[in-house]
Amino acid sequence: MRHTISILVENKFGVLARIAGMFSGRGFNIDTLNVGPMLDGRFSRITATIIGDEDALDQVIKQVDKFINVLEVTAFSRGQATERELVILKVNAPAAKRSEIMQVCDIFRAKIIDVASESLNVEMTGNANKIKAFLDLIEPYGIVEMARTGNLALKRG
Amino acid sequence: MRHTISILVENKFGVLARIAGMFSGRGFNIDTLNVGPMLDGRFSRITATIIGDEDALDQVIKQVDKFINVLEVTAFSRGQATERELVILKVNAPAAKRSEIMQVCDIFRAKIIDVASESLNVEMTGNANKIKAFLDLIEPYGIVEMARTGNLALKRG
Repeated sequence: MRHTISILVENKFGVLARIAGMFSGRGFNIDTLNVGPMLDGRFSRITATIIGDEDALDQVIKQVDKFINVLEVTAFSRGQATERELVILKVNAPAAKRSEIMQVCDIFRAKIIDVASESLNVEMTGNANKIKAFLDLIEPYGIVEMARTGNLALKRG
Repeated sequence: MRHTISILVENKFGVLARIAGMFSGRGFNIDTLNVGPMLDGRFSRITATIIGDEDALDQVIKQVDKFINVLEVTAFSRGQATERELVILKVNAPAAKRSEIMQVCDIFRAKIIDVASESLNVEMTGNANKIKAFLDLIEPYGIVEMARTGNLALKRG
């Protein structure tokens, strides 16, 4: 099963490597991962989606919670959280195809962030399903390069 | 100095933990990190911003490039790439303050993604500076929770 875990940590040397090592040591595969600083630069939030067994997950969460640099661990089940990812990509876009591609972007509220004679750079946010739908439509034009964040999760209301 | 590194890897068990361990073992602090799958699920792209010495960086890149599961390593200097991050946050928003907050969101093209009687969930994308400017304006209202991806980078035109 796929789980989203949010971990608030002190921004100290090696914390991330320790946590990543712990997940893989326990047989969890990390599907996506984000690490970004909080307003107060002393802390960072790690958001990971991992694939593994539910019982094993409880064990890992308890273990992570014991780390001295970990302040808080939250696991989200499906639907409990607002989930968002960001993808940026460069798509082949000769002049003859450009307006067609821009139409697709428009429908998905994707933003054009850079334009060159033969390509467009596009950014899009959404949950995993929405991003998949967008990529399926864009792929036939030729994706030259792509980078994608992992899932972020925020408790609802 | 701050460097952005983009690493294309095979989506194999433990690759991320190995790379993260390597950076921290060499004395680099990982400031932000993203791992997301490519279209072909066999590959993932890791984007990391790390802080450390330029010469040491060359060494680390060579080392990472030797890993069997690594297909490609690119280091970006400032201005070579289009950079984007995503932040999602929940801000205190009692009815009396809501329109004021929505105005700030509007200026920064931030999207409201969830609304409750006392709070708003907001998403915003931009480079690090733009996100900082937005957070500085939103912080006084009270940020209840926040998650942030690391930096993504895409070569220009």
